[in-house]
Amino acid sequence: MTGMFAGLSAFPLTPLRGDVVDEDARVGLIERLTVAGVDSITVLGSTGSSAYLSAPERARVARLAVEHAGTTPVFVGVGALRTSHVLSHVDSAAAAGAAGVMLAPMSYQPLTPDDVFELYRAVTAHTGLPVIVYDNPATTHFTFTTDLYARIAALPGIASIKIPGVPPDLDTARAHVAKIRSVIPARITIGVSGDPFAATGLIAGCETWYSVIGGTLPEPALTIARAVRDGRDEDALAESARLAPLWSLFSEYQGSLRVTAAIAEHLGLAPQRCLPLPIQGLSEEQRKRIAAVVEQLGFS
Amino acid sequence: MTGMFAGLSAFPLTPLRGDVVDEDARVGLIERLTVAGVDSITVLGSTGSSAYLSAPERARVARLAVEHAGTTPVFVGVGALRTSHVLSHVDSAAAAGAAGVMLAPMSYQPLTPDDVFELYRAVTAHTGLPVIVYDNPATTHFTFTTDLYARIAALPGIASIKIPGVPPDLDTARAHVAKIRSVIPARITIGVSGDPFAATGLIAGCETWYSVIGGTLPEPALTIARAVRDGRDEDALAESARLAPLWSLFSEYQGSLRVTAAIAEHLGLAPQRCLPLPIQGLSEEQRKRIAAVVEQLGFS
Repeated sequence: MTGMFAGLSAFPLTPLRGDVVDEDARVGLIERLTVAGVDSITVLGSTGSSAYLSAPERARVARLAVEHAGTTPVFVGVGALRTSHVLSHVDSAAAAGAAGVMLAPMSYQPLTPDDVFELYRAVTAHTGLPVIVYDNPATTHFTFTTDLYARIAALPGIASIKIPGVPPDLDTARAHVAKIRSVIPARITIGVSGDPFAATGLIAGCETWYSVIGGTLPEPALTIARAVRDGRDEDALAESARLAPLWSLFSEYQGSLRVTAAIAEHLGLAPQRCLPLPIQGLSEEQRKRIAAVVEQLGFS
Repeated sequence: MTGMFAGLSAFPLTPLRGDVVDEDARVGLIERLTVAGVDSITVLGSTGSSAYLSAPERARVARLAVEHAGTTPVFVGVGALRTSHVLSHVDSAAAAGAAGVMLAPMSYQPLTPDDVFELYRAVTAHTGLPVIVYDNPATTHFTFTTDLYARIAALPGIASIKIPGVPPDLDTARAHVAKIRSVIPARITIGVSGDPFAATGLIAGCETWYSVIGGTLPEPALTIARAVRDGRDEDALAESARLAPLWSLFSEYQGSLRVTAAIAEHLGLAPQRCLPLPIQGLSEEQRKRIAAVVEQLGFS
């Protein structure tokens, strides 16, 4: 299963229009990704607003994605606060034709490592679909240890681990990825997330990039991913450096989601104010800076 | 409305039995609180597992509470990740006969102060029910500032602010409460949470104690609350000091929820393993310590 869990996995937004999923915009984003030729599409990740959607909305979004993705594999985020709800989302994803599921250990009460291990055990026992482990403390408020990666990776069905980023220094990043690699089976891929770290992460040995901007701007993401695949590490780092004004917006504007949504809105790929409330999205002043960066970097 | 939002507000668990709300246990806990004479009951707080329950489960739990609480006011937690879901929970709470709603700014994507302000604005514009502001960064991952308290307190319908605790030193606690008091209208009560801080918080000027243990062990909570009300501050501090073994368990065992659930299970007030998965609850070894503390402190 390694092949499917490598390369560029693009995370599209789930745009809302007046608190209802905008299905046309959603389908448009999926088709844009398949045309661009991403290696896989992961819907209902953090970028896909899964945490905010109802079970029927999630089932519908998963089905629409598979219907419009052609031969591109679709992975579906199944995270929820309660285990039984996670299992329902897994069933919906399977019914929709997902090629795999991605599981974030969402938390309200802080979770222990045993809580999280048992969650992954329950899901891998419940489904034959491959499972991506989603590690993103900024949203789940749970921090994995390498030991816990190892315990979970020993479960049948675990296909990939999405790590939250890598250290910016390449040698340190290599050591970080190698340490995780040393405790998990070879068939499990390691995927970097945190787009500003992606070029470094891929060069450092991650097989996959779970990409937020790849879901809206597949071209620059593919430029980076293909460069590393083809051994042109310097080209990947150069493209990532060129995108520095975008990475700056991520850190200034509370992460990648609001910025990516504003870019999609600016490019007409999503209706205005497409994020679920209470997330207000960016101010008019902030949107002017977004527009300037979009023009500067030639995004379309 | 101040009177209703003062004194001891008890937060009962919502026990599950095999992933289904145990209605008998739930009603038993409510009746235990009304018999003990708490000033109010807040259901579907963090302790009531609201974040884990479906909308129909929440509506049912709110209705059961009001039906069995007699003349004791019932406040209902309405927090959810999406604003439209919060408004639905408010409608359910109103239909159930709630005397007020408590709103936690739950987050998945980190929220900005403006996001949170607009959430409270939307809720106070939507309902005539009084609203308790719930500030608990350990679960919501949002940190209020005093400025934001002031902005939200100026909205019509805000009745009380539940603060996460107070500094342990009494003079520092007094200054902390006075600072909040100075920026909010006099009609709005300040309620302390974090049970180990409660005696200090009440003495420092909080009008309310939003209490986890009060929802399962109302007697010792009332001992503290009544002592402060009657000017016997030393008695309140002495009772809180007597409960130190319980507070130690809270800090050792990831907060109050797992400990309180284990106490309720030990006392036969809830079925075994009553918390929603993925929360595993305490180990057998930890439960032995719980049982020893229950015996030592004479809880029943």
